[in-house]
Amino acid sequence: MQPDLAAPVELTDDFIEALRGIVEQRLSTSEAVREQHGRDESYHPSQAPGAVVYAHSTEEVSAVVKLCAEHKVPVIPFGTGTSLEGHVAALRGGVCIDVTEMNEVLRVSVEDLDVTVQPGVTRKQLNEYLRDTGLFFPVDPGADASIGGMTATRASGTNAVRYGTMRENVLSLTVVMADGRVIRTSSRARKSSAGYDLTRLFVGSEGTLGVITEITLRLFGIPEATSAAVASFPSLEAAVNTVILTIQSGIPVARIELLDELQMDAINKYSGLNYPKQPTLFFEFHGSDAGVKEQAETVQAIADDFGSADFKWATKAEDRTKLWQARHDAYYAAMALRPGCKGMTTDVCVPISRLAECLLETRKDIDESGIVAPIVGHVGDGNFHTAMIISPDDEEEIARAYEVNERMVMRALAMGGTCTGEHGVGYGKMDFLVAEHGEALSVMRSLKMALDPDNIMNPGKIIRP
Amino acid sequence: MQPDLAAPVELTDDFIEALRGIVEQRLSTSEAVREQHGRDESYHPSQAPGAVVYAHSTEEVSAVVKLCAEHKVPVIPFGTGTSLEGHVAALRGGVCIDVTEMNEVLRVSVEDLDVTVQPGVTRKQLNEYLRDTGLFFPVDPGADASIGGMTATRASGTNAVRYGTMRENVLSLTVVMADGRVIRTSSRARKSSAGYDLTRLFVGSEGTLGVITEITLRLFGIPEATSAAVASFPSLEAAVNTVILTIQSGIPVARIELLDELQMDAINKYSGLNYPKQPTLFFEFHGSDAGVKEQAETVQAIADDFGSADFKWATKAEDRTKLWQARHDAYYAAMALRPGCKGMTTDVCVPISRLAECLLETRKDIDESGIVAPIVGHVGDGNFHTAMIISPDDEEEIARAYEVNERMVMRALAMGGTCTGEHGVGYGKMDFLVAEHGEALSVMRSLKMALDPDNIMNPGKIIRP
Repeated sequence: MQPDLAAPVELTDDFIEALRGIVEQRLSTSEAVREQHGRDESYHPSQAPGAVVYAHSTEEVSAVVKLCAEHKVPVIPFGTGTSLEGHVAALRGGVCIDVTEMNEVLRVSVEDLDVTVQPGVTRKQLNEYLRDTGLFFPVDPGADASIGGMTATRASGTNAVRYGTMRENVLSLTVVMADGRVIRTSSRARKSSAGYDLTRLFVGSEGTLGVITEITLRLFGIPEATSAAVASFPSLEAAVNTVILTIQSGIPVARIELLDELQMDAINKYSGLNYPKQPTLFFEFHGSDAGVKEQAETVQAIADDFGSADFKWATKAEDRTKLWQARHDAYYAAMALRPGCKGMTTDVCVPISRLAECLLETRKDIDESGIVAPIVGHVGDGNFHTAMIISPDDEEEIARAYEVNERMVMRALAMGGTCTGEHGVGYGKMDFLVAEHGEALSVMRSLKMALDPDNIMNPGKIIRP
Repeated sequence: MQPDLAAPVELTDDFIEALRGIVEQRLSTSEAVREQHGRDESYHPSQAPGAVVYAHSTEEVSAVVKLCAEHKVPVIPFGTGTSLEGHVAALRGGVCIDVTEMNEVLRVSVEDLDVTVQPGVTRKQLNEYLRDTGLFFPVDPGADASIGGMTATRASGTNAVRYGTMRENVLSLTVVMADGRVIRTSSRARKSSAGYDLTRLFVGSEGTLGVITEITLRLFGIPEATSAAVASFPSLEAAVNTVILTIQSGIPVARIELLDELQMDAINKYSGLNYPKQPTLFFEFHGSDAGVKEQAETVQAIADDFGSADFKWATKAEDRTKLWQARHDAYYAAMALRPGCKGMTTDVCVPISRLAECLLETRKDIDESGIVAPIVGHVGDGNFHTAMIISPDDEEEIARAYEVNERMVMRALAMGGTCTGEHGVGYGKMDFLVAEHGEALSVMRSLKMALDPDNIMNPGKIIRP
């Protein structure tokens, strides 16, 4: 999908001077810095902003946005730049607000199991900070993303099946609106019926409605016991049926990840392992010692019923780390299948009853397309990805990959699913929203126009003007 | 708080005839029917609509709303009328759309653990329907409310601490917008990052943004084992500290309800029981046989540490039913303390670290006010209620009760809480939103104006025009 590349807004010298009046020396117009801030980790074309500022406070962000609003200059918030659908490309130029220096944990409450952070705090930094409290924050996208970016993208990861996504784990936000006003979306109370759910409106809004400057998150107690296991299956259906029965049985599995044959082959080669080359589930269980044992035994029995011959335990922390490292390296392992190539990631999510069918049809379609693309999935949620390994110079192959992605999305939608489970829309998936939402997209457009009438907040993402 | 009683919109004979063209004989303008539809279960003054229609389908609702939009006639959706803040009062007259005849379960998927219902299905009806599937829907406000009303009010209940509120348990909605357009807010996928979270925007919108005509809900497996327990404590602090440590320890308690001394006295008298007249916690545990036992033993140990001398088990279904019946009868038991009086319910929610302080100051304030008002609470969430038992003819006492409620709300807000944990805003709590949300209220107003520019959807609720 190609971006709308309207002529970028020119930033005048006076404007740059006014910006410098707000952020002082924390402003750059150098080409290298601008280029870096217009690019994410995706295959989508990037676009540099006209200037980059490094904000230090909500007040500074508000002052910058006010100035931009006065001059109708686009504003693009930037965390770690690890998004996957062109979210940070400055399609109409403007000012990139880099929040990486807003990286303080502002407060933590062990009693309330919550924490308030600035948007530049990354998920690993947060968990490092929390280590001595006995608490942790569970949402774990592949990258060590910023909490601000994860909130804006409605991110999830491997243990959403147990702990939820950013949707469930953000309690409250501080947001700078398109006119520079600062709002707090809600109190810290665990639940409330006091008006419209502004928190959830900004979670997943990808910078198009405002700039998130503080995030209050739910935390969880580090489980008393953790164990992990690996099980290979004779077929994808057998693996998925194991997942369905596990979820249906109410077993509070913390992680349940699927890797297909090709992906297993890739990680064996990449990490020097020797798992069977078969569809495989990686599990993790959290709870008390007895609870974890009970969960795992129940799941093992289910897996056995579906023909898994080798349910392997990893109870030692060291073995678990190795196992999950292999899972986290899946993308790099896939890339290593074709050195010199680039990855094109996909991300659909369907009701779990359609998951096996969706996976099999996708596997077949990929194989017929001749593209190398292992499949991995957060299958407890019905969410899976392929990484299509593409030669960057082969236009025809790239076109084929785009077609596979499009068919994959349309297949997911036809099965009652969504075009993106966790990566977001950016500009890469904007056109799919028409097929997914129909008339509801016009309601989203009304919201965008009400809150950002001049279309300065990350323009050209989610909603076509 | 007094409603804005602008002159009700007059419904002309032509308009009524046009309405009858849509719903045929399912229309009433009789005074008795209109009066019943302008009243909820609260102490707030009621206001009858100009006409009541009994819709049978999304298409009918859409046609009625289109007609109302053409004539700028208010539309008020109506379920069971069990709201508590004047939600259904037709403050500016108009057409009440009664959805009680839209009461079908449209589909259920055991594999996906979800169900789609019409808005008039009540929570008990739904669970009755699900009985043979091994699944249940957990959200349980006091009344046997309609799922449509529960969605619109962002309702919760006794087991939100484990299963979440309507916010977490609605997957998707069909909504008739203020101009009659019909949208579906999202797919059935468990998670999605595909644009703005319209589902959460309509959950809790109290009919002010559109009429909900279909709801897809998450379901849960009926637990293999359930047990319940009762523990009394030497003080409110001891009880609340037990709650805090239980939640912190990650024990997935299904219910944890607080009843204060006065409430225990009331239920003893009302239900012929003989619990100690002390602050008391009612617990319920869900899981496997071993898991439930382990959870309950851990909680018992915590309660012992905080001075609970009598942790009583209720493992038999019969004993549990008796226990929870006593809890559900709390309101009626409170009313029985002063026969002939009316109840004025309150509903605040604070971070759990402030709960003991908030409860104690509230108890002291009530006692000093001379009002009879037992306290009950969904304390795992930091949410509690008082039922102030008031003589309906004593203006001075009513004024005192309003003041107690206002102080209770302001106290909760000062502690980082919310003016309503689960009852909603209606018109009864509209003015408190200024104190709770500040500038964010103007953002809510922008949303309302964007989606309902003529202010016909349940006008005078949540947002003052």
